[in-house]
Amino acid sequence: MAELFQKHPRRLAVIGVGLIGGSFALALREAAREVHIVGYDRDEINLAAARHMGVVNSTVHDAAAAVRDADMVMIAVPVGQFEGVLQEIAPALNPSAIITDVGSTKGSVVRAAQTMLGSAFERFVPGHPIAGAEHSGVRAARADLFRDRSVVLTPVEGTHELPRDIMRKCWEACGARVEEMTVTRHDAIFGVVSHLPHLLSFALVYDIATRVDADTFFRFAASGFRDFTRIAGSSPEMWRDIGLANRDVLLLEITRYREHLERLSQLLTQQDGAALEAFFRVAREARRSWTETP
Amino acid sequence: MAELFQKHPRRLAVIGVGLIGGSFALALREAAREVHIVGYDRDEINLAAARHMGVVNSTVHDAAAAVRDADMVMIAVPVGQFEGVLQEIAPALNPSAIITDVGSTKGSVVRAAQTMLGSAFERFVPGHPIAGAEHSGVRAARADLFRDRSVVLTPVEGTHELPRDIMRKCWEACGARVEEMTVTRHDAIFGVVSHLPHLLSFALVYDIATRVDADTFFRFAASGFRDFTRIAGSSPEMWRDIGLANRDVLLLEITRYREHLERLSQLLTQQDGAALEAFFRVAREARRSWTETP
Repeated sequence: MAELFQKHPRRLAVIGVGLIGGSFALALREAAREVHIVGYDRDEINLAAARHMGVVNSTVHDAAAAVRDADMVMIAVPVGQFEGVLQEIAPALNPSAIITDVGSTKGSVVRAAQTMLGSAFERFVPGHPIAGAEHSGVRAARADLFRDRSVVLTPVEGTHELPRDIMRKCWEACGARVEEMTVTRHDAIFGVVSHLPHLLSFALVYDIATRVDADTFFRFAASGFRDFTRIAGSSPEMWRDIGLANRDVLLLEITRYREHLERLSQLLTQQDGAALEAFFRVAREARRSWTETP
Repeated sequence: MAELFQKHPRRLAVIGVGLIGGSFALALREAAREVHIVGYDRDEINLAAARHMGVVNSTVHDAAAAVRDADMVMIAVPVGQFEGVLQEIAPALNPSAIITDVGSTKGSVVRAAQTMLGSAFERFVPGHPIAGAEHSGVRAARADLFRDRSVVLTPVEGTHELPRDIMRKCWEACGARVEEMTVTRHDAIFGVVSHLPHLLSFALVYDIATRVDADTFFRFAASGFRDFTRIAGSSPEMWRDIGLANRDVLLLEITRYREHLERLSQLLTQQDGAALEAFFRVAREARRSWTETP
Protein backbone atom coordinates (compact mmCIF):
# COMPACT_ATOMS: atom_id res chain seq x y z
CA MET A 1 0.00 0.00 0.00
CA ALA A 2 2.84 2.34 0.90
CA GLU A 3 4.02 1.99 -2.68
CA LEU A 4 0.67 3.17 -3.95
CA PHE A 5 0.54 6.48 -2.15
CA GLN A 6 1.85 8.19 0.91
CA LYS A 7 -0.83 10.71 1.56
CA HIS A 8 -3.33 11.20 -1.23
CA PRO A 9 -4.80 8.60 -3.51
CA ARG A 10 -4.07 8.67 -7.23
CA ARG A 11 -7.43 7.26 -8.12
CA LEU A 12 -10.38 7.84 -5.81
CA ALA A 13 -13.75 6.16 -6.24
CA VAL A 14 -16.71 7.96 -4.69
CA ILE A 15 -19.80 5.80 -4.30
CA GLY A 16 -22.67 8.20 -3.65
CA VAL A 17 -21.76 11.64 -4.94
CA GLY A 18 -24.14 13.65 -2.75
CA LEU A 19 -23.45 16.48 -0.33
CA ILE A 20 -20.84 14.56 1.66
CA GLY A 21 -19.29 12.40 -1.06
CA GLY A 22 -19.20 15.37 -3.43
CA SER A 23 -17.67 17.68 -0.83
CA PHE A 24 -15.02 15.08 -0.02
CA ALA A 25 -14.15 14.88 -3.75
CA LEU A 26 -13.94 18.68 -4.03
CA ALA A 27 -11.86 19.03 -0.86
CA LEU A 28 -9.48 16.24 -1.80
CA ARG A 29 -8.94 17.66 -5.25
CA GLU A 30 -7.98 21.00 -3.74
CA ALA A 31 -5.37 19.14 -1.70
CA ALA A 32 -4.19 16.94 -4.57
CA ARG A 33 -4.77 18.32 -8.06
CA GLU A 34 -3.56 15.17 -9.78
CA VAL A 35 -6.08 12.77 -8.25
CA HIS A 36 -8.47 11.13 -10.69
CA ILE A 37 -11.93 10.83 -9.19
CA VAL A 38 -14.45 8.31 -10.47
CA GLY A 39 -18.03 8.79 -9.35
CA TYR A 40 -20.99 6.47 -9.08
CA ASP A 41 -24.47 7.38 -7.83
CA ARG A 42 -27.75 5.51 -8.07
CA ASP A 43 -29.38 8.82 -8.98
CA GLU A 44 -28.33 9.35 -12.61
CA ILE A 45 -29.33 12.99 -12.71
CA ASN A 46 -27.26 13.71 -9.62
CA LEU A 47 -24.37 11.78 -11.12
CA ALA A 48 -24.55 13.74 -14.39
CA ALA A 49 -24.55 16.96 -12.36
CA ALA A 50 -21.44 15.81 -10.47
CA ARG A 51 -19.66 15.19 -13.78
CA HIS A 52 -20.89 18.46 -15.25
CA MET A 53 -19.79 20.43 -12.19
CA GLY A 54 -16.34 18.84 -12.33
CA VAL A 55 -16.76 17.25 -8.91
CA VAL A 56 -15.65 13.96 -10.46
CA ASN A 57 -13.46 13.36 -13.51
CA SER A 58 -15.42 10.44 -14.81
CA THR A 59 -18.57 8.50 -14.02
CA VAL A 60 -19.56 4.88 -14.30
CA HIS A 61 -22.89 3.12 -14.13
CA ASP A 62 -22.23 0.58 -11.44
CA ALA A 63 -20.41 0.64 -8.15
CA ALA A 64 -18.10 -2.27 -9.04
CA ALA A 65 -16.81 -0.44 -12.11
CA ALA A 66 -16.06 2.61 -9.95
CA VAL A 67 -13.74 0.79 -7.57
CA ARG A 68 -11.72 -1.05 -10.22
CA ASP A 69 -8.12 0.24 -9.96
CA ALA A 70 -9.08 2.79 -7.30
CA ASP A 71 -6.57 3.06 -4.47
CA MET A 72 -9.15 4.75 -2.24
CA VAL A 73 -12.87 4.00 -2.10
CA MET A 74 -15.13 6.49 -0.32
CA ILE A 75 -18.60 5.07 0.36
CA ALA A 76 -20.99 7.97 1.02
CA VAL A 77 -24.41 6.35 0.77
CA PRO A 78 -27.25 6.22 3.37
CA VAL A 79 -26.27 3.65 5.99
CA GLY A 80 -29.10 1.36 4.93
CA GLN A 81 -27.50 0.92 1.49
CA PHE A 82 -24.04 0.30 2.83
CA GLU A 83 -24.16 -3.49 2.91
CA GLY A 84 -25.54 -3.71 -0.63
CA VAL A 85 -22.79 -1.46 -1.93
CA LEU A 86 -20.11 -3.55 -0.20
CA GLN A 87 -21.52 -6.70 -1.73
CA GLU A 88 -21.30 -5.15 -5.17
CA ILE A 89 -17.83 -3.74 -4.87
CA ALA A 90 -16.06 -6.39 -2.81
CA PRO A 91 -15.11 -8.66 -5.75
CA ALA A 92 -13.85 -5.69 -7.81
CA LEU A 93 -11.67 -4.05 -5.16
CA ASN A 94 -8.04 -3.37 -5.89
CA PRO A 95 -6.19 -5.67 -3.42
CA SER A 96 -4.48 -2.73 -1.75
CA ALA A 97 -7.31 -0.20 -1.85
CA ILE A 98 -8.27 1.69 1.27
CA ILE A 99 -12.01 1.64 1.89
CA THR A 100 -13.72 4.24 4.02
CA ASP A 101 -17.18 5.63 4.70
CA VAL A 102 -19.01 8.60 6.23
CA GLY A 103 -22.01 6.90 7.86
CA SER A 104 -23.72 8.50 10.86
CA THR A 105 -23.72 5.15 12.66
CA LYS A 106 -20.68 2.97 12.90
CA GLY A 107 -21.66 -0.34 14.53
CA SER A 108 -23.85 -1.53 11.67
CA VAL A 109 -21.33 -0.34 9.10
CA VAL A 110 -18.44 -2.17 10.74
CA ARG A 111 -20.50 -5.36 11.09
CA ALA A 112 -21.39 -5.23 7.39
CA ALA A 113 -17.79 -4.55 6.39
CA GLN A 114 -16.56 -7.43 8.52
CA THR A 115 -18.98 -9.76 6.76
CA MET A 116 -18.57 -8.51 3.21
CA LEU A 117 -14.99 -7.38 2.83
CA GLY A 118 -13.04 -10.49 3.80
CA SER A 119 -9.33 -9.71 4.10
CA ALA A 120 -9.94 -6.17 2.78
CA PHE A 121 -11.56 -5.44 6.15
CA GLU A 122 -8.11 -4.58 7.54
CA ARG A 123 -8.03 -1.70 5.06
CA PHE A 124 -11.49 -0.42 5.99
CA VAL A 125 -11.40 2.79 8.04
CA PRO A 126 -14.85 3.72 9.39
CA GLY A 127 -15.39 7.49 9.49
CA HIS A 128 -18.02 10.08 10.33
CA PRO A 129 -17.59 13.74 9.43
CA ILE A 130 -19.68 15.96 11.72
CA ALA A 131 -20.81 18.20 8.93
CA GLY A 132 -23.95 18.55 6.98
CA ALA A 133 -26.22 21.18 5.70
CA GLU A 134 -29.89 21.73 5.20
CA HIS A 135 -29.56 20.74 1.57
CA SER A 136 -28.52 17.46 0.05
CA GLY A 137 -27.26 16.28 -3.33
CA VAL A 138 -24.11 17.20 -5.19
CA ARG A 139 -25.35 20.72 -5.94
CA ALA A 140 -24.92 21.50 -2.24
CA ALA A 141 -21.36 20.11 -2.17
CA ARG A 142 -18.57 22.51 -1.18
CA ALA A 143 -14.80 22.10 -0.98
CA ASP A 144 -14.81 23.73 2.46
CA LEU A 145 -17.63 21.71 4.02
CA PHE A 146 -15.22 19.96 6.39
CA ARG A 147 -13.00 22.90 7.20
CA ASP A 148 -12.62 23.19 10.99
CA ARG A 149 -15.19 20.44 11.45
CA SER A 150 -14.67 17.24 13.41
CA VAL A 151 -14.26 13.94 11.67
CA VAL A 152 -14.52 10.89 13.89
CA LEU A 153 -12.64 7.76 12.85
CA THR A 154 -13.56 4.52 14.58
CA PRO A 155 -10.86 2.01 13.65
CA VAL A 156 -11.30 -1.47 15.12
CA GLU A 157 -8.82 -4.03 16.33
CA GLY A 158 -8.29 -5.43 12.86
CA THR A 159 -7.76 -2.07 11.16
CA HIS A 160 -4.23 -1.68 9.86
CA GLU A 161 -2.13 1.26 10.87
CA LEU A 162 -1.33 2.59 7.41
CA PRO A 163 -4.87 3.00 6.04
CA ARG A 164 -5.84 4.58 9.33
CA ASP A 165 -3.00 7.10 9.09
CA ILE A 166 -3.74 7.82 5.47
CA MET A 167 -7.40 8.51 6.18
CA ARG A 168 -6.42 10.81 9.02
CA LYS A 169 -4.11 12.73 6.69
CA CYS A 170 -6.74 12.84 3.95
CA TRP A 171 -9.32 14.39 6.25
CA GLU A 172 -6.75 16.80 7.65
CA ALA A 173 -5.94 17.78 4.07
CA CYS A 174 -9.67 18.56 3.74
CA GLY A 175 -9.33 20.97 6.68
CA ALA A 176 -10.96 18.72 9.30
CA ARG A 177 -9.97 17.95 12.88
CA VAL A 178 -9.69 14.18 13.23
CA GLU A 179 -10.59 12.35 16.44
CA GLU A 180 -10.60 8.65 17.09
CA MET A 181 -12.95 6.72 19.32
CA THR A 182 -14.37 3.23 19.54
CA VAL A 183 -17.39 2.21 17.50
CA THR A 184 -19.43 1.69 20.66
CA ARG A 185 -18.53 5.07 22.06
CA HIS A 186 -19.33 6.76 18.76
CA ASP A 187 -22.77 5.22 18.51
CA ALA A 188 -23.54 5.95 22.16
CA ILE A 189 -22.63 9.63 21.79
CA PHE A 190 -24.33 10.29 18.49
CA GLY A 191 -27.35 8.27 19.54
CA VAL A 192 -27.91 10.87 22.23
CA VAL A 193 -26.78 14.16 20.72
CA SER A 194 -28.12 13.57 17.23
CA HIS A 195 -30.28 10.50 16.62
CA LEU A 196 -32.54 10.84 19.67
CA PRO A 197 -33.37 14.53 19.07
CA HIS A 198 -34.30 13.71 15.48
CA LEU A 199 -36.73 11.06 16.68
CA LEU A 200 -38.13 13.42 19.32
CA SER A 201 -38.63 16.16 16.78
CA PHE A 202 -40.30 13.83 14.27
CA ALA A 203 -42.55 12.57 17.09
CA LEU A 204 -43.76 16.05 18.06
CA VAL A 205 -44.67 17.01 14.51
CA TYR A 206 -46.30 13.60 13.99
CA ASP A 207 -48.28 14.17 17.18
CA ILE A 208 -49.71 17.41 15.84
CA ALA A 209 -50.07 16.36 12.21
CA THR A 210 -52.26 13.40 13.13
CA ARG A 211 -54.85 15.48 15.01
CA VAL A 212 -58.14 16.21 13.26
CA ASP A 213 -57.62 19.93 13.79
CA ALA A 214 -53.90 19.92 13.02
CA ASP A 215 -54.20 23.11 10.96
CA THR A 216 -55.32 25.18 13.92
CA PHE A 217 -52.46 23.86 16.04
CA PHE A 218 -49.90 24.58 13.36
CA ARG A 219 -51.31 28.06 12.84
CA PHE A 220 -50.39 29.07 16.38
CA ALA A 221 -46.96 27.45 16.36
CA ALA A 222 -44.23 30.06 16.59
CA SER A 223 -40.46 30.43 16.73
CA GLY A 224 -39.85 27.90 19.53
CA PHE A 225 -41.70 25.27 17.53
CA ARG A 226 -39.84 26.29 14.38
CA ASP A 227 -36.42 25.67 15.92
CA PHE A 228 -37.42 22.53 17.81
CA THR A 229 -38.84 20.93 14.67
CA ARG A 230 -36.34 22.04 12.06
CA ILE A 231 -34.73 18.59 12.07
CA ALA A 232 -38.14 16.99 11.47
CA GLY A 233 -37.73 18.28 7.92
CA SER A 234 -34.92 15.74 7.42
CA SER A 235 -35.00 12.76 5.07
CA PRO A 236 -37.35 9.98 6.31
CA GLU A 237 -35.32 7.38 4.43
CA MET A 238 -32.03 8.47 5.95
CA TRP A 239 -33.47 8.54 9.46
CA ARG A 240 -35.18 5.19 9.03
CA ASP A 241 -31.74 3.79 8.17
CA ILE A 242 -30.00 5.52 11.06
CA GLY A 243 -32.74 4.48 13.48
CA LEU A 244 -32.46 0.83 12.47
CA ALA A 245 -28.66 0.91 12.37
CA ASN A 246 -28.35 2.34 15.88
CA ARG A 247 -31.47 0.81 17.33
CA ASP A 248 -29.92 -0.80 20.41
CA VAL A 249 -28.61 2.55 21.59
CA LEU A 250 -31.85 4.30 20.63
CA LEU A 251 -34.04 1.80 22.44
CA LEU A 252 -32.00 2.37 25.58
CA GLU A 253 -32.03 6.14 25.19
CA ILE A 254 -35.75 6.38 24.43
CA THR A 255 -36.43 4.43 27.62
CA ARG A 256 -34.15 6.74 29.58
CA TYR A 257 -35.77 9.81 28.03
CA ARG A 258 -39.26 8.52 28.79
CA GLU A 259 -38.19 8.24 32.42
CA HIS A 260 -37.29 11.93 32.42
CA LEU A 261 -40.75 12.69 31.04
CA GLU A 262 -42.30 10.50 33.71
CA ARG A 263 -40.38 12.47 36.31
CA LEU A 264 -41.65 15.75 34.85
CA SER A 265 -45.19 14.37 34.98
CA GLN A 266 -44.70 13.46 38.64
CA LEU A 267 -43.42 16.93 39.48
CA LEU A 268 -46.39 18.51 37.70
CA THR A 269 -48.83 16.19 39.47
CA GLN A 270 -47.27 16.99 42.84
CA GLN A 271 -47.12 20.68 41.87
CA ASP A 272 -43.51 20.64 42.97
CA GLY A 273 -42.47 24.00 41.60
CA ALA A 274 -39.05 24.02 43.24
CA ALA A 275 -38.05 20.67 41.74
CA LEU A 276 -39.45 21.65 38.32
CA GLU A 277 -37.48 24.86 38.35
CA ALA A 278 -34.34 23.01 39.45
CA PHE A 279 -34.77 20.52 36.58
CA PHE A 280 -35.16 23.34 34.05
CA ARG A 281 -32.26 25.23 35.57
CA VAL A 282 -29.85 22.31 35.14
CA ALA A 283 -30.83 22.22 31.47
CA ARG A 284 -30.72 25.98 31.02
CA GLU A 285 -27.28 26.35 32.57
CA ALA A 286 -25.89 23.48 30.50
CA ARG A 287 -27.43 24.83 27.31
CA ARG A 288 -26.16 28.33 27.95
CA SER A 289 -22.63 27.20 28.66
CA TRP A 290 -22.62 24.93 25.62
CA THR A 291 -20.90 26.38 22.62
CA GLU A 292 -21.04 24.64 19.34
CA THR A 293 -17.70 23.19 18.30
CA PRO A 294 -17.35 24.73 14.88
CA MET B 1 -66.82 52.90 31.01
CA ALA B 2 -67.84 54.27 27.66
CA GLU B 3 -67.51 57.71 29.18
CA LEU B 4 -63.92 57.02 30.13
CA PHE B 5 -62.60 56.18 26.69
CA GLN B 6 -63.72 54.84 23.36
CA LYS B 7 -60.57 53.29 22.07
CA HIS B 8 -57.42 54.15 23.99
CA PRO B 9 -57.01 54.60 27.70
CA ARG B 10 -56.09 57.97 29.14
CA ARG B 11 -54.14 56.44 31.97
CA LEU B 12 -52.56 53.03 31.56
CA ALA B 13 -50.96 51.06 34.36
CA VAL B 14 -48.38 48.48 33.35
CA ILE B 15 -47.58 45.95 36.05
CA GLY B 16 -44.38 44.25 34.96
CA VAL B 17 -42.53 46.49 32.51
CA GLY B 18 -40.49 43.78 30.80
CA LEU B 19 -40.25 42.83 27.16
CA ILE B 20 -44.00 42.38 26.69
CA GLY B 21 -45.33 45.00 29.10
CA GLY B 22 -42.77 47.51 27.88
CA SER B 23 -43.50 46.82 24.22
CA PHE B 24 -47.23 47.21 24.86
CA ALA B 25 -46.55 50.59 26.47
CA LEU B 26 -44.39 51.69 23.55
CA ALA B 27 -46.87 50.49 20.94
CA LEU B 28 -49.85 52.04 22.66
CA ARG B 29 -48.11 55.37 23.00
CA GLU B 30 -47.42 55.40 19.27
CA ALA B 31 -51.14 54.92 18.74
CA ALA B 32 -52.19 57.43 21.41
CA ARG B 33 -49.64 60.12 22.22
CA GLU B 34 -51.72 61.57 25.05
CA VAL B 35 -51.88 58.41 27.18
CA HIS B 36 -50.19 58.62 30.57
CA ILE B 37 -48.43 55.38 31.41
CA VAL B 38 -47.60 54.42 34.98
CA GLY B 39 -45.18 51.57 35.43
CA TYR B 40 -44.53 49.17 38.28
CA ASP B 41 -41.98 46.36 38.31
CA ARG B 42 -40.62 44.28 41.17
CA ASP B 43 -37.17 44.71 39.62
CA GLU B 44 -36.22 48.26 40.53
CA ILE B 45 -33.35 48.48 38.10
CA ASN B 46 -35.59 47.38 35.26
CA LEU B 47 -38.23 49.88 36.38
CA ALA B 48 -35.71 52.71 36.47
CA ALA B 49 -34.60 51.76 32.97
CA ALA B 50 -38.22 51.85 31.78
CA ARG B 51 -38.59 55.36 33.15
CA HIS B 52 -35.25 56.46 31.78
CA MET B 53 -36.07 55.09 28.32
CA GLY B 54 -39.40 56.89 28.32
CA VAL B 55 -41.34 53.62 28.08
CA VAL B 56 -43.45 54.84 31.00
CA ASN B 57 -44.24 58.40 32.09
CA SER B 58 -44.02 57.69 35.77
CA THR B 59 -43.19 54.88 38.11
CA VAL B 60 -44.50 53.79 41.50
CA HIS B 61 -43.19 51.40 44.10
CA ASP B 62 -46.15 49.15 44.53
CA ALA B 63 -48.67 47.63 42.20
CA ALA B 64 -51.69 49.08 44.04
CA ALA B 65 -50.38 52.61 43.57
CA ALA B 66 -49.97 51.96 39.86
CA VAL B 67 -53.61 51.07 39.25
CA ARG B 68 -55.12 53.95 41.19
CA ASP B 69 -57.05 56.09 38.68
CA ALA B 70 -55.88 53.96 35.75
CA ASP B 71 -58.60 53.22 33.18
CA MET B 72 -56.60 50.31 31.80
CA VAL B 73 -54.42 47.88 33.73
CA MET B 74 -52.04 45.66 31.82
CA ILE B 75 -50.63 42.83 33.93
CA ALA B 76 -47.49 41.51 32.26
CA VAL B 77 -45.88 39.37 34.96
CA PRO B 78 -44.91 35.67 34.90
CA VAL B 79 -48.12 33.66 35.30
CA GLY B 80 -47.02 32.38 38.69
CA GLN B 81 -47.10 35.92 40.07
CA PHE B 82 -50.46 36.78 38.59
CA GLU B 83 -52.61 35.91 41.59
CA GLY B 84 -50.40 37.84 44.00
CA VAL B 85 -50.57 40.91 41.79
CA LEU B 86 -54.37 40.69 41.57
CA GLN B 87 -54.61 40.45 45.32
CA GLU B 88 -52.55 43.61 45.68
CA ILE B 89 -54.33 45.67 43.09
CA ALA B 90 -57.96 44.54 43.51
CA PRO B 91 -58.82 46.97 46.34
CA ALA B 92 -57.22 49.90 44.50
CA LEU B 93 -58.82 49.40 41.10
CA ASN B 94 -60.76 52.22 39.51
CA PRO B 95 -64.36 50.90 39.44
CA SER B 96 -64.54 51.15 35.66
CA ALA B 97 -60.96 50.09 34.80
CA ILE B 98 -60.35 47.45 32.18
CA ILE B 99 -57.94 44.78 33.37
CA THR B 100 -56.01 42.61 30.95
CA ASP B 101 -52.98 40.34 30.86
CA VAL B 102 -50.53 38.66 28.49
CA GLY B 103 -49.98 35.30 30.19
CA SER B 104 -48.98 32.24 28.15
CA THR B 105 -51.61 30.16 29.92
CA LYS B 106 -55.17 31.31 30.36
CA GLY B 107 -57.01 28.80 32.55
CA SER B 108 -55.04 29.54 35.71
CA VAL B 109 -55.17 33.27 35.04
CA VAL B 110 -58.94 33.30 34.57
CA ARG B 111 -59.46 31.20 37.72
CA ALA B 112 -57.33 33.62 39.72
CA ALA B 113 -59.14 36.65 38.30
CA GLN B 114 -62.51 35.10 39.07
CA THR B 115 -61.48 34.63 42.68
CA MET B 116 -59.68 37.90 43.23
CA LEU B 117 -61.45 40.51 41.14
CA GLY B 118 -65.02 40.25 42.37
CA SER B 119 -67.32 42.33 40.20
CA ALA B 120 -64.34 43.72 38.27
CA PHE B 121 -64.03 40.27 36.70
CA GLU B 122 -66.53 41.36 34.03
CA ARG B 123 -63.96 43.93 32.91
CA PHE B 124 -61.09 41.44 32.81
CA VAL B 125 -60.06 40.51 29.26
CA PRO B 126 -57.55 37.63 29.23
CA GLY B 127 -55.02 37.97 26.40
CA HIS B 128 -51.93 36.30 24.98
CA PRO B 129 -49.77 37.97 22.35
CA ILE B 130 -47.84 35.39 20.32
CA ALA B 131 -44.66 37.37 20.31
CA GLY B 132 -41.45 37.15 22.19
CA ALA B 133 -37.81 37.39 21.59
CA GLU B 134 -34.64 35.76 22.82
CA HIS B 135 -34.10 38.61 25.21
CA SER B 136 -36.19 39.78 28.12
CA GLY B 137 -36.48 42.93 30.19
CA VAL B 138 -37.49 46.41 29.19
CA ARG B 139 -34.28 46.98 27.24
CA ALA B 140 -35.53 44.47 24.68
CA ALA B 141 -38.93 46.21 24.36
CA ARG B 142 -39.91 47.49 20.93
CA ALA B 143 -42.92 49.46 19.71
CA ASP B 144 -43.29 47.07 16.76
CA LEU B 145 -43.03 43.80 18.69
CA PHE B 146 -46.68 42.98 18.01
CA ARG B 147 -46.88 44.22 14.44
CA ASP B 148 -48.42 41.50 12.24
CA ARG B 149 -48.35 39.10 15.19
CA SER B 150 -51.34 37.24 16.56
CA VAL B 151 -52.89 38.17 19.85
CA VAL B 152 -55.34 35.67 21.27
CA LEU B 153 -58.11 36.97 23.52
CA THR B 154 -60.01 34.44 25.59
CA PRO B 155 -63.05 36.25 26.96
CA VAL B 156 -65.32 34.14 29.16
CA GLU B 157 -69.07 34.12 29.64
CA GLY B 158 -68.95 36.89 32.21
CA THR B 159 -66.69 39.20 30.18
CA HIS B 160 -68.51 42.36 29.15
CA GLU B 161 -68.69 43.34 25.52
CA LEU B 162 -67.17 46.80 25.84
CA PRO B 163 -63.84 45.92 27.54
CA ARG B 164 -63.49 43.06 25.09
CA ASP B 165 -63.97 45.42 22.12
CA ILE B 166 -61.63 47.97 23.60
CA MET B 167 -58.87 45.42 24.12
CA ARG B 168 -59.33 44.21 20.55
CA LYS B 169 -58.97 47.77 19.27
CA CYS B 170 -55.97 48.42 21.51
CA TRP B 171 -54.11 45.41 20.18
CA GLU B 172 -55.08 46.27 16.63
CA ALA B 173 -53.71 49.78 17.24
CA CYS B 174 -50.46 48.01 18.24
CA GLY B 175 -50.41 46.36 14.81
CA ALA B 176 -51.56 42.91 15.94
CA ARG B 177 -54.10 40.51 14.45
CA VAL B 178 -56.63 39.64 17.14
CA GLU B 179 -58.26 36.23 17.40
CA GLU B 180 -60.68 34.99 20.00
CA MET B 181 -60.95 31.49 21.35
CA THR B 182 -62.06 29.79 24.54
CA VAL B 183 -59.73 29.45 27.49
CA THR B 184 -59.77 25.66 27.15
CA ARG B 185 -58.98 25.75 23.47
CA HIS B 186 -56.16 28.23 24.04
CA ASP B 187 -54.49 26.12 26.70
CA ALA B 188 -54.92 22.94 24.66
CA ILE B 189 -53.29 24.48 21.59
CA PHE B 190 -50.41 26.23 23.32
CA GLY B 191 -49.84 23.23 25.57
CA VAL B 192 -48.96 21.29 22.44
CA VAL B 193 -47.26 23.79 20.13
CA SER B 194 -45.31 25.65 22.80
CA HIS B 195 -45.32 24.27 26.34
CA LEU B 196 -44.68 20.61 25.48
CA PRO B 197 -41.71 21.32 23.17
CA HIS B 198 -40.14 23.45 25.91
CA LEU B 199 -40.41 20.55 28.36
CA LEU B 200 -39.05 18.12 25.76
CA SER B 201 -36.11 20.37 25.01
CA PHE B 202 -35.30 20.92 28.69
CA ALA B 203 -35.52 17.14 29.20
CA LEU B 204 -33.00 16.35 26.46
CA VAL B 205 -30.43 18.81 27.76
CA TYR B 206 -31.06 17.60 31.33
CA ASP B 207 -30.53 14.03 30.12
CA ILE B 208 -27.09 14.90 28.75
CA ALA B 209 -26.06 17.35 31.47
CA THR B 210 -26.58 14.76 34.19
CA ARG B 211 -24.23 12.17 32.64
CA VAL B 212 -20.79 11.77 34.18
CA ASP B 213 -19.18 12.36 30.79
CA ALA B 214 -21.54 15.16 29.73
CA ASP B 215 -18.68 17.22 28.32
CA THR B 216 -17.83 14.65 25.69
CA PHE B 217 -21.45 14.38 24.63
CA PHE B 218 -21.83 18.14 24.36
CA ARG B 219 -18.59 18.39 22.41
CA PHE B 220 -20.03 16.34 19.57
CA ALA B 221 -23.41 18.04 19.53
CA ALA B 222 -23.92 19.97 16.31
CA SER B 223 -26.46 22.11 14.50
CA GLY B 224 -29.44 19.77 14.90
CA PHE B 225 -28.89 19.75 18.65
CA ARG B 226 -28.41 23.53 18.66
CA ASP B 227 -31.81 24.19 17.08
CA PHE B 228 -33.65 21.51 19.05
CA THR B 229 -32.36 22.83 22.35
CA ARG B 230 -32.49 26.57 21.75
CA ILE B 231 -35.66 26.82 23.86
CA ALA B 232 -33.93 25.00 26.72
CA GLY B 233 -32.11 28.30 27.24
CA SER B 234 -35.41 29.85 28.41
CA SER B 235 -36.19 31.06 31.92
CA PRO B 236 -36.59 28.18 34.42
CA GLU B 237 -38.86 30.34 36.58
CA MET B 238 -41.17 31.26 33.73
CA TRP B 239 -41.44 27.67 32.54
CA ARG B 240 -42.00 26.37 36.05
CA ASP B 241 -44.96 28.76 36.24
CA ILE B 242 -46.30 27.83 32.82
CA GLY B 243 -45.87 24.14 33.54
CA LEU B 244 -47.81 24.37 36.78
CA ALA B 245 -50.43 26.69 35.30
CA ASN B 246 -51.17 24.37 32.39
CA ARG B 247 -50.40 21.12 34.10
CA ASP B 248 -53.63 19.27 33.28
CA VAL B 249 -53.04 19.76 29.58
CA LEU B 250 -49.35 18.98 29.91
CA LEU B 251 -49.94 15.78 31.86
CA LEU B 252 -52.27 14.61 29.10
CA GLU B 253 -49.90 15.63 26.35
CA ILE B 254 -46.82 14.12 27.96
CA THR B 255 -48.69 10.83 28.21
CA ARG B 256 -49.72 11.07 24.58
CA TYR B 257 -46.19 11.92 23.53
CA ARG B 258 -44.73 9.04 25.52
CA GLU B 259 -47.07 6.76 23.58
CA HIS B 260 -45.55 8.00 20.34
CA LEU B 261 -42.11 7.21 21.73
CA GLU B 262 -43.30 3.78 22.77
CA ARG B 263 -44.53 3.23 19.22
CA LEU B 264 -41.15 4.27 17.83
CA SER B 265 -39.47 1.83 20.22
CA GLN B 266 -41.76 -0.94 18.99
CA LEU B 267 -40.98 -0.17 15.36
CA LEU B 268 -37.24 -0.20 16.12
CA THR B 269 -37.55 -3.47 18.02
CA GLN B 270 -39.49 -5.06 15.18
CA GLN B 271 -37.07 -3.49 12.69
CA ASP B 272 -40.12 -2.27 10.80
CA GLY B 273 -38.35 0.08 8.40
CA ALA B 274 -41.43 0.79 6.28
CA ALA B 275 -43.51 1.91 9.26
CA LEU B 276 -40.64 3.97 10.67
CA GLU B 277 -40.17 5.73 7.36
CA ALA B 278 -43.93 6.34 7.09
CA PHE B 279 -43.96 7.86 10.59
CA PHE B 280 -41.06 10.17 9.75
CA ARG B 281 -42.63 11.02 6.40
CA VAL B 282 -45.89 12.21 7.98
CA ALA B 283 -43.83 14.52 10.20
CA ARG B 284 -41.52 15.67 7.41
CA GLU B 285 -44.38 16.53 5.04
CA ALA B 286 -46.25 18.42 7.77
CA ARG B 287 -43.12 20.29 8.84
CA ARG B 288 -42.22 21.21 5.27
CA SER B 289 -45.69 22.50 4.46
CA TRP B 290 -45.85 24.46 7.71
CA THR B 291 -45.05 28.09 7.34
CA GLU B 292 -44.72 30.27 10.36
CA THR B 293 -47.55 32.76 10.70
CA PRO B 294 -45.61 35.97 10.98
